[in-house]
Amino acid sequence: MLLEAIYHQPKSQYAYAYDHETLHIRVRTKKDDMDRVSVVWGDKYDFHEETIRTSEMNVFARDTMFDYYEVEIKPPFRRFAYAFKFEKGDRTVFWNETGFKEDSLHSGGVGMLWSPSGMFEFPFLNTIDVFTPPEWVKDAVFYQIFPERFANGDASLNPPGTEAWTPDAVPTRDNFFGGDLQGVIDKLDYLEELGVTCIYFTPFFEAFSNHKYDTIDYLKVDPQFGDNETAKRLVDEAHARGIRVMLDAVFNHSGYYFPPFQDVLKNGEKSRFRDWFHIRDYPLAEDPLNYDTFGFVAQMPKLNTEHPEVKAYLLEVARYWIEDIGADGWRLDVANEVDHRFWREFRDTVKKANPDAYILGEIWHNSLAWLGGDQFDAVMNYPVTNAILDFFVKEEIDAAHFMGRLDAMLISYPRQANEAAFNLLDSHDTPRLLSIAEGDKERMKLAALFQLTYMGAPCIYYGDEVGMDGGADPGCRRPMVWEEDHQDQELLSFYQTLISLRRSHRALRDGSFRFISAESGSSVTAYERADDMSRFVIAANAGTKQEKIELSDLGQGTFRSLEDDTLYELKNGKLTLTLVPLQAVVLKEQ
Amino acid sequence: MLLEAIYHQPKSQYAYAYDHETLHIRVRTKKDDMDRVSVVWGDKYDFHEETIRTSEMNVFARDTMFDYYEVEIKPPFRRFAYAFKFEKGDRTVFWNETGFKEDSLHSGGVGMLWSPSGMFEFPFLNTIDVFTPPEWVKDAVFYQIFPERFANGDASLNPPGTEAWTPDAVPTRDNFFGGDLQGVIDKLDYLEELGVTCIYFTPFFEAFSNHKYDTIDYLKVDPQFGDNETAKRLVDEAHARGIRVMLDAVFNHSGYYFPPFQDVLKNGEKSRFRDWFHIRDYPLAEDPLNYDTFGFVAQMPKLNTEHPEVKAYLLEVARYWIEDIGADGWRLDVANEVDHRFWREFRDTVKKANPDAYILGEIWHNSLAWLGGDQFDAVMNYPVTNAILDFFVKEEIDAAHFMGRLDAMLISYPRQANEAAFNLLDSHDTPRLLSIAEGDKERMKLAALFQLTYMGAPCIYYGDEVGMDGGADPGCRRPMVWEEDHQDQELLSFYQTLISLRRSHRALRDGSFRFISAESGSSVTAYERADDMSRFVIAANAGTKQEKIELSDLGQGTFRSLEDDTLYELKNGKLTLTLVPLQAVVLKEQ
Repeated sequence: MLLEAIYHQPKSQYAYAYDHETLHIRVRTKKDDMDRVSVVWGDKYDFHEETIRTSEMNVFARDTMFDYYEVEIKPPFRRFAYAFKFEKGDRTVFWNETGFKEDSLHSGGVGMLWSPSGMFEFPFLNTIDVFTPPEWVKDAVFYQIFPERFANGDASLNPPGTEAWTPDAVPTRDNFFGGDLQGVIDKLDYLEELGVTCIYFTPFFEAFSNHKYDTIDYLKVDPQFGDNETAKRLVDEAHARGIRVMLDAVFNHSGYYFPPFQDVLKNGEKSRFRDWFHIRDYPLAEDPLNYDTFGFVAQMPKLNTEHPEVKAYLLEVARYWIEDIGADGWRLDVANEVDHRFWREFRDTVKKANPDAYILGEIWHNSLAWLGGDQFDAVMNYPVTNAILDFFVKEEIDAAHFMGRLDAMLISYPRQANEAAFNLLDSHDTPRLLSIAEGDKERMKLAALFQLTYMGAPCIYYGDEVGMDGGADPGCRRPMVWEEDHQDQELLSFYQTLISLRRSHRALRDGSFRFISAESGSSVTAYERADDMSRFVIAANAGTKQEKIELSDLGQGTFRSLEDDTLYELKNGKLTLTLVPLQAVVLKEQ
Repeated sequence: MLLEAIYHQPKSQYAYAYDHETLHIRVRTKKDDMDRVSVVWGDKYDFHEETIRTSEMNVFARDTMFDYYEVEIKPPFRRFAYAFKFEKGDRTVFWNETGFKEDSLHSGGVGMLWSPSGMFEFPFLNTIDVFTPPEWVKDAVFYQIFPERFANGDASLNPPGTEAWTPDAVPTRDNFFGGDLQGVIDKLDYLEELGVTCIYFTPFFEAFSNHKYDTIDYLKVDPQFGDNETAKRLVDEAHARGIRVMLDAVFNHSGYYFPPFQDVLKNGEKSRFRDWFHIRDYPLAEDPLNYDTFGFVAQMPKLNTEHPEVKAYLLEVARYWIEDIGADGWRLDVANEVDHRFWREFRDTVKKANPDAYILGEIWHNSLAWLGGDQFDAVMNYPVTNAILDFFVKEEIDAAHFMGRLDAMLISYPRQANEAAFNLLDSHDTPRLLSIAEGDKERMKLAALFQLTYMGAPCIYYGDEVGMDGGADPGCRRPMVWEEDHQDQELLSFYQTLISLRRSHRALRDGSFRFISAESGSSVTAYERADDMSRFVIAANAGTKQEKIELSDLGQGTFRSLEDDTLYELKNGKLTLTLVPLQAVVLKEQ
């Protein structure tokens, strides 16, 4: 046993409440090191040899170095004192806060279990502390819209110099094509037919640029896009079709033309807004920068979210769009650079306006500090994005590493956060999926298939579904292609089918997930998703050679291929599949 | 290199803001495994080969399995992206969120440092999130008073059946001796002379029992102890002597005679207070218990701190004693079983009433979840209590384990929490120190010497300083011995001298701390405390044999023994000491 590899931290993603009566307890060990791992537990106030219980744990995730064990427990009085028990061959080791002890009375091993002193503790499961993302997110399929580029529904709003909306239009950093909110309303039928259930809008508040991340007025729709009435109508029309709407909150920094910043530029130290920003010296200067900004961009001054007036203003913004306009959630731009205290109050404000609103942070790195239940419901799941792209699209990692990187996310957060994670493959900030795949639609489809059959909420970037390509910003922000003869109808139909499949089967959204095949050196992976209604086995070959794989440990049953209705009968829990390069099969149990 | 032993978690006790401009970055490795550990870092928005910097880390704590490295960094723009670099012999390994990479371009090693993608991040140091316990706590010496047993200053308040206050009085679970707040006021000169700077009172609010943990009215001094005016006078008189006052908040549960609980007992489901508690069924029953309680004690019903009325009531209690009466802090009984959300609002309320108030949680196990800066300033430091007792008093562990257990606490929390930790050796909940030492005053003194020269705030339990003994509750709650001929004057003088020494030298309170000697199998330990004003070397022999120890790595200088003025000159940074059994020496640099 490699004791140095064992890890657990009480009251963390290794020990948390999943609901008002259920705890999840996890522990890490070196890969393939243990025969059996258990948690030995009881109630602190009645903890002795006769009352303690032992619950065996199961491996729920593996990466290249570690196995991660988990068990679900409902402590009768909501109090939980515990130790771990590790078994390998003849050796048994107990572990609590006082350290590791071999299983003998002499060494203090089993004897440590006869008193609650020194145990790890989850002292009391208080309902109000339980992390509860909205239930609907598990079932959602998101669709990201960049408002200036989705559809032009009201030409009267076009800014001067608006360029023609053609399939070969070339976006630049500062040109305009006239997209607006009426355009989105006009296309809601398209979205309904596609099957998506929530629109994620990048900002549509008044701003200077075409991307609108440089806000001027957070309480007003940009006049190029319509007005607040149009926004309300859009939300209502979307809701009537069962489609929710998530907006984009850029609270880390304002735009250059935000009136309070203009006031500081003009009045310097005497401005009544001077403390709305982080200013080191007057007058404001750009070189060297003497105030905090987003990155080193002088035009995006960082907001002082510790200041009561700034906080009051932004929290009113948060409330207004949810409560008065009816939006269903906020995506939080550069969420990691704003103070935690602000986000706690933000959550209170938003959840008071609508307890079912979704709060999604833009964080590219480990986000545990925001996912304790007091701040965000989830984050944009870039580590999963990258794992999917590296395996299916770029062929940079093998199946074992693919599994390892996905599973590493499972242990990084409480399960709730992964269930509500926002799984994107591309966005307005990255090249489009088809361009990452260098035009290879088969690879693109493999990635989308995985995304749409994995846990978390998938998000499709507008136009990907009709075969749009484009490199990094500005290339990825072309106007949506609406002419059917310029759309890839077969790809569109693929997305529709896949979304429909996901929506028809809870197993594919919120069922159990396990890898059945993820070998080192292999380009083939297979996984199972199941709930009490249905069971799927999905296998995909991301490589350039035909591969034959034998899947085992599948129990009994007969599977049907959704593509060609071929039947596969399990023999001793085994199934053999042959996959040509870039082929995927989706098998559903009969 | 044992890569499985390496641990770091961003935005945790391994990466936190120490003040408005300083980050502490820590990493764990297998004990004695590395030649050199560094953090490689830069600003996320200007992160490339030319701009990144390397800062070497130092071992700041060791336990029996691991070394813990730390470095302090002030990132110029408060943004910090980083990776670790491990060196051993010819091998160099880099580590960031994407995993471990050997130092070669082929394996992705040093190349991983040329882009911020995949780095660990402390995205922005927001001042409002910095964990800031009150500065005064570092300098405080606490004195715990159990009000019913410290001094009787107003016999007119004695409850019926009050027993005689004699040196041989025997406390029981339910007898009374007439201690009161006037008694404490009368003895403030004694406390001032002893040198303590903050009184910690176990509860003095109206309650049924002699220990007063079963509250009836949280807003009223128990009539046996005086009234709120007496409390105010006590606080004022203490403040006039430079002595602060900390009270005890029992918010997890009320007493049986708390009027809202009585109302539920009487009116059951119809009581307007039914939701103030956690009730599963009506009428209330004790066997089986159908409502939540402290432990399984039916007379101590758990308060529903999620309920807005309960919260409002308890927060008003929190505010009142701080703001209107002038108390300087709250010790929180059974703090771990109350919801985190309540404690966040509690902190806001208390710090608004007095930003310098101390918030101390009673938690016996790992308390990281409460020490992020949003809840408590510190916890009662039982792991340090136990390490001191096990080494100096019970002789159960050797010096290496002693160091390991203390150092394990250093890595368990951010440094702030350890600086403000409440280091007790005994209390009303444990046998007295002298009884734990089985009457051996030399061992008692070794423990007190360490407690009073270690980091964190020491607390002395009333009467220990005059040689009182007593077993577990009720034995440890004897009336204070005031007759001088029954007091151990030599012990009292020892405590006075030691407290005075601590108060005279910042090095002993808030200076650097390092073990100089802590060998496996040894009963001798030595450590250094230093700041820019003074330097101490303290050595103690907890064993029963004379020991000669050679201390090295001490630099230059001459030390003087505070006991007998012997001079010790360092030779090549070395110092040799001979210690008889249970001897300690305190050496101060000349």
